[in-house]
Amino acid sequence: MTHLMGDDGPGPDSGLLSPVRAGSAAERATDDRAWLRALLDAEAALARAQARLGAVPAAAAETVAQVAEAGAIDLARLAVRAREAGNPVVALVEELTEAVAAVDAGAAEHVHRGSTSQDMMDTAAMLVAGRTLALILVDLDRTAAALARLARNHRDTIMVGRTLGRHAVPVTFGLKAAGWLHSVVAARERLSRVRADLPAQLGGAAGTLAAYLEYAGIAGAQDPESHPERLMAAFAAEVGLKDPVLPWHTSRIPLADLAGALTLTAGVLGKLAVDVQSLSRTEVAEVAEPSAPGRGGSSAMPHKRNPVLTTLIRSAAIQVPMLAATLGQCMLAEDERPAGAWQAEWQPLRECLRLVGGAAEVAAELAEGLEVFPDRMRANLELTGSLTVTERLAAALAPILGKAAAKRLLGRAAASAAATGRPIIDPLMEIPEVAERLTREDIADLVDPAAYTGAAGTLVDRALRAYESSDG
Amino acid sequence: MTHLMGDDGPGPDSGLLSPVRAGSAAERATDDRAWLRALLDAEAALARAQARLGAVPAAAAETVAQVAEAGAIDLARLAVRAREAGNPVVALVEELTEAVAAVDAGAAEHVHRGSTSQDMMDTAAMLVAGRTLALILVDLDRTAAALARLARNHRDTIMVGRTLGRHAVPVTFGLKAAGWLHSVVAARERLSRVRADLPAQLGGAAGTLAAYLEYAGIAGAQDPESHPERLMAAFAAEVGLKDPVLPWHTSRIPLADLAGALTLTAGVLGKLAVDVQSLSRTEVAEVAEPSAPGRGGSSAMPHKRNPVLTTLIRSAAIQVPMLAATLGQCMLAEDERPAGAWQAEWQPLRECLRLVGGAAEVAAELAEGLEVFPDRMRANLELTGSLTVTERLAAALAPILGKAAAKRLLGRAAASAAATGRPIIDPLMEIPEVAERLTREDIADLVDPAAYTGAAGTLVDRALRAYESSDG
Amino acid sequence: MTHLMGDDGPGPDSGLLSPVRAGSAAERATDDRAWLRALLDAEAALARAQARLGAVPAAAAETVAQVAEAGAIDLARLAVRAREAGNPVVALVEELTEAVAAVDAGAAEHVHRGSTSQDMMDTAAMLVAGRTLALILVDLDRTAAALARLARNHRDTIMVGRTLGRHAVPVTFGLKAAGWLHSVVAARERLSRVRADLPAQLGGAAGTLAAYLEYAGIAGAQDPESHPERLMAAFAAEVGLKDPVLPWHTSRIPLADLAGALTLTAGVLGKLAVDVQSLSRTEVAEVAEPSAPGRGGSSAMPHKRNPVLTTLIRSAAIQVPMLAATLGQCMLAEDERPAGAWQAEWQPLRECLRLVGGAAEVAAELAEGLEVFPDRMRANLELTGSLTVTERLAAALAPILGKAAAKRLLGRAAASAAATGRPIIDPLMEIPEVAERLTREDIADLVDPAAYTGAAGTLVDRALRAYESSDG
Amino acid sequence: MTHLMGDDGPGPDSGLLSPVRAGSAAERATDDRAWLRALLDAEAALARAQARLGAVPAAAAETVAQVAEAGAIDLARLAVRAREAGNPVVALVEELTEAVAAVDAGAAEHVHRGSTSQDMMDTAAMLVAGRTLALILVDLDRTAAALARLARNHRDTIMVGRTLGRHAVPVTFGLKAAGWLHSVVAARERLSRVRADLPAQLGGAAGTLAAYLEYAGIAGAQDPESHPERLMAAFAAEVGLKDPVLPWHTSRIPLADLAGALTLTAGVLGKLAVDVQSLSRTEVAEVAEPSAPGRGGSSAMPHKRNPVLTTLIRSAAIQVPMLAATLGQCMLAEDERPAGAWQAEWQPLRECLRLVGGAAEVAAELAEGLEVFPDRMRANLELTGSLTVTERLAAALAPILGKAAAKRLLGRAAASAAATGRPIIDPLMEIPEVAERLTREDIADLVDPAAYTGAAGTLVDRALRAYESSDG
Repeated sequence: MTHLMGDDGPGPDSGLLSPVRAGSAAERATDDRAWLRALLDAEAALARAQARLGAVPAAAAETVAQVAEAGAIDLARLAVRAREAGNPVVALVEELTEAVAAVDAGAAEHVHRGSTSQDMMDTAAMLVAGRTLALILVDLDRTAAALARLARNHRDTIMVGRTLGRHAVPVTFGLKAAGWLHSVVAARERLSRVRADLPAQLGGAAGTLAAYLEYAGIAGAQDPESHPERLMAAFAAEVGLKDPVLPWHTSRIPLADLAGALTLTAGVLGKLAVDVQSLSRTEVAEVAEPSAPGRGGSSAMPHKRNPVLTTLIRSAAIQVPMLAATLGQCMLAEDERPAGAWQAEWQPLRECLRLVGGAAEVAAELAEGLEVFPDRMRANLELTGSLTVTERLAAALAPILGKAAAKRLLGRAAASAAATGRPIIDPLMEIPEVAERLTREDIADLVDPAAYTGAAGTLVDRALRAYESSDG
Repeated sequence: MTHLMGDDGPGPDSGLLSPVRAGSAAERATDDRAWLRALLDAEAALARAQARLGAVPAAAAETVAQVAEAGAIDLARLAVRAREAGNPVVALVEELTEAVAAVDAGAAEHVHRGSTSQDMMDTAAMLVAGRTLALILVDLDRTAAALARLARNHRDTIMVGRTLGRHAVPVTFGLKAAGWLHSVVAARERLSRVRADLPAQLGGAAGTLAAYLEYAGIAGAQDPESHPERLMAAFAAEVGLKDPVLPWHTSRIPLADLAGALTLTAGVLGKLAVDVQSLSRTEVAEVAEPSAPGRGGSSAMPHKRNPVLTTLIRSAAIQVPMLAATLGQCMLAEDERPAGAWQAEWQPLRECLRLVGGAAEVAAELAEGLEVFPDRMRANLELTGSLTVTERLAAALAPILGKAAAKRLLGRAAASAAATGRPIIDPLMEIPEVAERLTREDIADLVDPAAYTGAAGTLVDRALRAYESSDG
Repeated sequence: MTHLMGDDGPGPDSGLLSPVRAGSAAERATDDRAWLRALLDAEAALARAQARLGAVPAAAAETVAQVAEAGAIDLARLAVRAREAGNPVVALVEELTEAVAAVDAGAAEHVHRGSTSQDMMDTAAMLVAGRTLALILVDLDRTAAALARLARNHRDTIMVGRTLGRHAVPVTFGLKAAGWLHSVVAARERLSRVRADLPAQLGGAAGTLAAYLEYAGIAGAQDPESHPERLMAAFAAEVGLKDPVLPWHTSRIPLADLAGALTLTAGVLGKLAVDVQSLSRTEVAEVAEPSAPGRGGSSAMPHKRNPVLTTLIRSAAIQVPMLAATLGQCMLAEDERPAGAWQAEWQPLRECLRLVGGAAEVAAELAEGLEVFPDRMRANLELTGSLTVTERLAAALAPILGKAAAKRLLGRAAASAAATGRPIIDPLMEIPEVAERLTREDIADLVDPAAYTGAAGTLVDRALRAYESSDG
Repeated sequence: MTHLMGDDGPGPDSGLLSPVRAGSAAERATDDRAWLRALLDAEAALARAQARLGAVPAAAAETVAQVAEAGAIDLARLAVRAREAGNPVVALVEELTEAVAAVDAGAAEHVHRGSTSQDMMDTAAMLVAGRTLALILVDLDRTAAALARLARNHRDTIMVGRTLGRHAVPVTFGLKAAGWLHSVVAARERLSRVRADLPAQLGGAAGTLAAYLEYAGIAGAQDPESHPERLMAAFAAEVGLKDPVLPWHTSRIPLADLAGALTLTAGVLGKLAVDVQSLSRTEVAEVAEPSAPGRGGSSAMPHKRNPVLTTLIRSAAIQVPMLAATLGQCMLAEDERPAGAWQAEWQPLRECLRLVGGAAEVAAELAEGLEVFPDRMRANLELTGSLTVTERLAAALAPILGKAAAKRLLGRAAASAAATGRPIIDPLMEIPEVAERLTREDIADLVDPAAYTGAAGTLVDRALRAYESSDG
């Protein structure tokens, strides 16, 4: 048991205030340890890339890489020391150099050779982003598969469509699920594209790679002319990221791409959540979140089963756009390194990644376990009954009465039906122009909601085909 | 001359508070008239698409289209009437129907047939977005071409690189221009992609296309089974937008894509602006905005030439991320039409479009006319002189003194040089280990900033090649 | 009728995309004409203040003030000319000078004497803000009065409280209205405070008032020592704003205060809107928006009565926080005038003011006309019946069974009641420990929701007393 | 040394990505342990308040309070368990109950009696906010005192004022410091006011306090009528927060007030930071950040001393407005507890608090140690020499030449002076109208920048008086 006041307990933030990601894989993939891991991976990759090109002795590079791999760095101290330089790399290089020196003093000379803090920090950020996106994509795959099942199974399950909170016209639950699915497919596509483009960063102090070249020249590396391009390529290959055309220390396109795709994904998941919340309100009760032991309890009310999964997702979706907007502000990065805009990126990027990651993990569970109640959907549709087909009646009566008159008379008939509780057919048959042309049976056919779902089935099929041909 | 207090003057916003877009093509492409134009285009396209499939008489469709083309609608009244329904389409349809009826009462029956406000409003939004993006892309093309010239012409123009506001190491102005160029190319690519994907919207009251089908059936249109898909395709073709897999009334991917790409573009232009501002400060004066009669005047100071172009661009770049974040919030669109989230999209979308459009127009002028002062760049570099090559000295001395000792001694030598005004070579030669191994001449070679620009030239060439192979 | 394509039609934005403020008083109070009015008022006030102190001839000042009053300035041209200087004041001063010269060439020498663009623009912004806040406060007064009536009239109207979309425990509609009321009172208090503190701006080119002093000296104004403070005070008195301790050209406290109070107000109104939306959903129907001819129509569905008022309010509440955040970013105003951050303030400030103003106008209408259906509230409460008092049963059974056991057994009984449709009393009486201690009658008393509204009435009374003692 | 991959290391976030607050007092005051402390304080206060009124046995309340005080709760497990209920209180109550039961089973019955998660979470949030604001206020006091010293000491230190990055007119460093000071005083006043108003939260499951009353009744507490108000007052007194008029579970005024005041404070500190950055650029060098061993190092360049303090502050100021905007979005809290909007508040609130807290701590150090170089200020002013007084010349020449002609001729003379390097006096004396009326000596007096600082001294005195009369 960890004592509250102890010195050795968890750090400032172990997820207590952000349950949507507390304990999630995305949280682990973005935590301080993961960033440190990525920073050390970048240092190891640099040494190895330089060794490939003869700029660093192979044995020294291996020693650096192995010590980096071991990762024995005091994280809390490092965090505080980041204050000295405004970023954690300066202190990390000192600590890593010391650790390497403890193994081989000569190898320590080759740590971070010719490099600059931003090369390591940016590369680490891309590594962390790539690793977290991989997790998110898996959860989006799960979510999409579950939503596709729902769309397929409920292709023709009729329910009422609601606009501005009011019963509108009939839809199907399959169409609703197809809409969710298609958005998840789009999110997956955007994130995959961004992930495939995540670049390594290698530019040196101001983007010219001058010090890398200098050290390479001193080390007698072959072909100084082509060295920079070969070094960039080798480093990118070692870290498993893309080799960019230029260093991007103050051209923050990769951050903007991440911000855009993560905002989109948060919105897609948030839309799913608000829909499920709307459909699972006590009075509506058309769907229910999957239940699990201990979930959704209230500290006050024994009977309550709170919709926790959608609440968590929605809490993330509210936060992400503003965090992403911060990354947009940070694009105004003056000169060869800005004094504030770069340093303001790291925490919002992490928050975006772990909030979307947590939300995706929850969304997969939600989609896979969503309970659907077709009877209840039908019952709710019948609450307003034929009122949801006044649009259809308007179409049928327009050729008889004229569009405007049809709409006006139907508005009146609908109001009368709503006020009196009579079926709309009654006031309609009292309109002479209607009674002359249509029988009671004609109208009865027109007012069956189940016969008025339009192209819902066709659209579900389109969405399923698009899903199946996407490369999830 | 328009009288201030007159009733017939300009509306609430003619650009007075947003000079970055006042009078710009993007402002015109997004103003109320342009939205009305797009709404009427959507209504015309709907009638024509329905006529193609036999759901509306061809002559009626042409009448609707011609009246829509004429566009005689009282805009100010329409704006106020939008309050009744929460969107301007309900009133517009009434006014358009009336205008068509004045020509041909029968044709008036076919206005907006089977349709819903959101189909028209969303389609119009995509039309407006597409038209404005076309303008923006032209200005980005101009900007990229001008930046490519700068990068090429100044491939080897040496200047000091600055990090956190301090002289760091030498760079070239060509490399700086190449960085701006490469970001503009990225923005152009993102916007082009989004533009190519802008979808038409056709779904009817709740996304099932039911009323469209109903009217088509009544009109005896052939093949009811395939009608919805053919109608969606025909409408998309008529408006010149993409035919989406599904109606997207509450799956706001297109808005999220626009938000992401516009934020990125605003950031790219903003980065250009802050860099030019940094380089054109009175004490730096390495570049200057193009001058023009009347531009940059101060109401107080006769001598002032204010950097107006970059100020305008920056004012836009500050605003866009938050406006785009609003679109992210609006993705939480409950049910088949949200009560607030949809209606909150329109103005932020317009603002993003016209701010980025205004900024792009200004950026093209800035890039095309930017004055560059290589002598001044050289003079500023010499202010800190060989201090900007301490990194290189560190590389040279590390094999002699060890990395840590080299860095420490250089730090001391640099401080001494800065304090006394002596060239750094003097304190260096006072270090016995150095003097033993290196001659004064060796060091003189090392401390020439012009010889320490690393791969700058190579990188400029890479960026130019990437630009030339992009399909601007 | 205004022709769509005509040159003389409304400007870029006459409200079409922002129905929440289209045609509202706040829109007029913040439109370009209103800003121009305020700019001219500031110029007039400056001339008069200088005349008071003998720095400008009284007759000249009166001529300037009268020409400014007449306001014959071409607004559209001014907007475009704002691009030249990055703000509209430089061009305005030229046009005003010309207009004064047409009356009296000598007086024209005294226009904008010693002044700078920012003095006029900032003062105008405060004037516009103050005038719009006055309108908002009136609408908040109306809203508060209407909500107080609702709280009073429905002090004991029982309904179900809902948490996370689920029935929780009984509340009263009076308590709900009291909560809205108390928030509106808070918003009113914050806005009043900010309004009372809105400062004039007078500092000259860089905040030293040097040119004002210089001209005063040349004009032989008395007592140069005290002139600056007397001039600041006189100018503030003339424009009816507060005399600040210092010029605040780059200390943007007044903007930050406005941003904070307007965000708070938008949130308060937005909360009212989402609550009314929740209560007026088709399945809930406990309240209804006031109806009005032509309001809430659907372009598709004759029966639809859309909740337009709350939709409009919510659309504003979604947008304001991000616009206000832009003002927060703009506080980073470097030096004596920033190149971008100042110019980015104007449009977001206007949007915040007119969105909140439009929303307040709508909210007053909503609150004054809200229809309340107590029967429906009671009926919905009975849907879950005694489940909403399981909390009370837990309290009663805890002393008998122990807290944990009571909660566990009640959870089970509630689930059984929900599943079988039996009243909860049945499964409860099957628990031996309960049946031993409590009679069926005891439990029947405990499960009456109407007897379990706690301190609702007391709290309503507290809120009404606080409202009555506030100085609306 | 903590091993990177170990299970027992620091949690997800120990500050590595947010150096502005890493290791700061504000970080500790807002970390998970501090929130847990505040939650336990709230539980203890509730028990004691209930005991005061006879609703809970005094001995039981003391036991609860003592166990809560000890705080032996496993934080990491709690964080993960928060996922079950969407907030950490449900699990905390279980763990606390168990811990109390280990001491006294009877007392365990009285843990969290009648309460709900939100009462505890909101109260804890206000406690954390209050405790952090106290720290921030101390740092703002230090900052204000240091800035007041700078303003006083440099009341008449002349330097150039800069607008849009260009030399404008002379100012004094004292006036600049006075501007910073006055803003810090405003921030302190806003935060103090908000802090004094932070309310306790006590409402029970839906704001009626029903369960508290129920338990009190069962316990035989005296005077049920007045019990709720007395309980609210007693609880507020126990936690040391304000007793609100109403529970505010969905009226989020306190959060909005915090958001507003923290955004304002972040902006005030950010303004200080960007100004110091502007003045300490290599080419300007008028001020320098205080140096400290190890601070501002570069991983690449031995000579670099980076402006770390201002970089840290600015990184915070960029982030806060968007985080605060999230709190604005969360005000749209539907019903008696929202499903997402409440849960989205916690992390942004914490981030705002710790970013502002970290920035304030850094700002105090910056202000206390800022180095000021008056000689350099004078040298930079002389760079543009008399050009910075063209405004004064315009005032002097206007009566002679007319305003417009004076401005035009001066613009020309300034351009000629700038182009040729001659003092402006030369081209001026070549203008016949000038030479006729003014001697070379007259003009020499007019072009002395030191004689053109206007009311700078007076304004410094005003700001100092306002500071001294504020109740820091």
